[in-house]
Amino acid sequence: MLAEIITIGDEILIGQIIDSNSAFIGKELNKIGIDVHQISSVKDDKQHILDAIEEASNRVDVVLITGGLGPTKDDITKHTICEYFEDTLVENKDVLEHVEKLFAKYIATPISDVNKQQALVPSKSTVLMNLYGTAPGMWLEKENTVFISMPGVPYEMKGLMKDEVLPRLQKRFNRPYIIHKTILTYGMGESTVAEKIEDWENDLPSYIKLAYLPNLGRVRLRLSARGNDKKLLEDTIEKKVSALNLIIGDIIVGYEEDETIEMRIGQLLIKQGKTLSVAESCTGGKIAQSFTANAGASAYFNGGAVTYATQSKIDILGIDPEIIKKHTVTSIEVAEAMALAVKEKFKSDYAIATTGNAGPEKGDGDVEVGTVFIAIATPKGVFSEQYVFSNLRERTIGKAVNKSFELLLNTLL
Amino acid sequence: MLAEIITIGDEILIGQIIDSNSAFIGKELNKIGIDVHQISSVKDDKQHILDAIEEASNRVDVVLITGGLGPTKDDITKHTICEYFEDTLVENKDVLEHVEKLFAKYIATPISDVNKQQALVPSKSTVLMNLYGTAPGMWLEKENTVFISMPGVPYEMKGLMKDEVLPRLQKRFNRPYIIHKTILTYGMGESTVAEKIEDWENDLPSYIKLAYLPNLGRVRLRLSARGNDKKLLEDTIEKKVSALNLIIGDIIVGYEEDETIEMRIGQLLIKQGKTLSVAESCTGGKIAQSFTANAGASAYFNGGAVTYATQSKIDILGIDPEIIKKHTVTSIEVAEAMALAVKEKFKSDYAIATTGNAGPEKGDGDVEVGTVFIAIATPKGVFSEQYVFSNLRERTIGKAVNKSFELLLNTLL
Repeated sequence: MLAEIITIGDEILIGQIIDSNSAFIGKELNKIGIDVHQISSVKDDKQHILDAIEEASNRVDVVLITGGLGPTKDDITKHTICEYFEDTLVENKDVLEHVEKLFAKYIATPISDVNKQQALVPSKSTVLMNLYGTAPGMWLEKENTVFISMPGVPYEMKGLMKDEVLPRLQKRFNRPYIIHKTILTYGMGESTVAEKIEDWENDLPSYIKLAYLPNLGRVRLRLSARGNDKKLLEDTIEKKVSALNLIIGDIIVGYEEDETIEMRIGQLLIKQGKTLSVAESCTGGKIAQSFTANAGASAYFNGGAVTYATQSKIDILGIDPEIIKKHTVTSIEVAEAMALAVKEKFKSDYAIATTGNAGPEKGDGDVEVGTVFIAIATPKGVFSEQYVFSNLRERTIGKAVNKSFELLLNTLL
Repeated sequence: MLAEIITIGDEILIGQIIDSNSAFIGKELNKIGIDVHQISSVKDDKQHILDAIEEASNRVDVVLITGGLGPTKDDITKHTICEYFEDTLVENKDVLEHVEKLFAKYIATPISDVNKQQALVPSKSTVLMNLYGTAPGMWLEKENTVFISMPGVPYEMKGLMKDEVLPRLQKRFNRPYIIHKTILTYGMGESTVAEKIEDWENDLPSYIKLAYLPNLGRVRLRLSARGNDKKLLEDTIEKKVSALNLIIGDIIVGYEEDETIEMRIGQLLIKQGKTLSVAESCTGGKIAQSFTANAGASAYFNGGAVTYATQSKIDILGIDPEIIKKHTVTSIEVAEAMALAVKEKFKSDYAIATTGNAGPEKGDGDVEVGTVFIAIATPKGVFSEQYVFSNLRERTIGKAVNKSFELLLNTLL
């Protein structure tokens, strides 16, 4: 069984927004054994949309359409779908009630006529209630093909997929098994990992595929097994992962699809009853933000100081100006002093500190653009490393953040 | 003239990665008057790739292919392109030298045979030097269609587009004009904006299209004008923007495509010779990170305190425990005390403070999930607002960050 994703919106083709919806939909469909055959992006143009729907309906069993359901004039998906099904729009009372409730709760202005139109749906459609916004999802069928229309706003689409679309698809279809196993590694480049596991990789059976997913110094390995014998797939995956563990077990952080190194750090800190604080200069708050983005961070994350200006390192952390004068603000010595100071100020067991120059120009220190010093304070002392990451600001910040996680993780394992 | 983007990689179709490359390519092509006709994502499968290239070559003048150029076994794009052009791979000395230099500078391990293969290119191709990684770009032609292959790693592809692909395409083709104008607004929802400017929108000439691009409480309006008379397009856009300014000028922040509210805040602070600091609880470092993500932030951003744990608000900022006891840690009073304290500690002119509960569970305070208090300290005093944003953690954090920018911007304008 195949699915096709059609994303609608000029803003995708001219690149004003990134289509993150297709990735989410692809991932979720894959989990229930539905293959995404193609992803097509088309314009907010009636004929384009009609063509895309018609073509997709000839190729696949499920067509998932996102976008173009907003309340404004450039959103024409609903009217176009209505035309494709030779249908008319009717007001749905449940949707109208829901829209009115949303306005009462979150928006000061009274509900407008434009917003009331969100309650209009094709008469032949089954409404998929969108609890996260005003545009309802719609489920339609024609000649054994299922058509699902969802809003393009990512968190609304995600909610609809989980609440309505996936359960309904699961109920209706019965698919062969697909099992994915993701292995998150750290501290080693893609090609080095590839060389180390070459024999293991060559030895994979044909029904298991391996993919390398590198990102800012972290490499994820993804194994995908497909077949009808669920037990065989599970056993083989387990055996291969065990074998992999013997080869590169020292760089494997976790096996969960959405797991990150910072989540693993959080788990370890909670398990050990320890806490963390951070002092950030060039990373500018991104380390703190990475931890606090995860629910439950308050169990181990005491907080942090973003001491961006040199003076703030003195005022807030109490760094001795003489150390800065002697070694410059971007130095091993200042990084270590920052880590020790923030650990004490926030009364934490561990601390991370960063100072460096993310560019594009030379800063208060005198090191080359891309140079970052990372210090880790532990209950036993402090250590630090110097890196040269990149001449691109965003990448230097991203790599410094990931590298700081690796250093801390090493001390916790 | 039309272009088609083919993104290659199983990881896109099964949703392990988000295709951000197509958006970048679409945006850049659009600027030089090349329309993206379709975006197709295909698997790491030789026949799939061959089919996609063949189909695209029948439809468009330029086919841009990304992905599948890595050094590992699952990357088969180069071999497949070679087959399509009935060509053979030859070693390119410039590329080999470049790969060796990259390894010497950034990677401790010696260059491997796997990496040396990155220097192999089809003999008929023009090499597009990739200064940001080991996989070269390739330019090939067949029956008046241009084929461009680039690595899938976003920053490598972006560098190649800017350094090589766009200048070469501009040299070769001569296109009608497309002018985009983006208007960034703040503080008003999409549908309210749409109602306010309905007459203005209806009055747009047919060669100008309007799109609404909402994101976490900010709405961008994008005008796109297309035609052969450059002066007419420019004059009309200018006239329409002036007219728009009369209707919603009070919520317009800027007119640059990549401009953000935090960048506008930075410009205003620099112009006024003022500085900023932040005290973040529920936003966890994201406000600091948003400012420091932009080069030049050190001219106005003194730093911040991520006082995530309640105790850290007392220890680091010196908040009176009695205030916390009396009003709870998630309150107007604590938010204002945090803003005033961080302003003093970091010796800044302005300060932002946040405290609230992003969820998913009730925290140290006793407010409902999604409730956030934002305080702004100015040279004249302090003020604050209470919001209920969302029951989704990520959205509550994102909206709190954006709202804090709006509040600060209001005081600076």
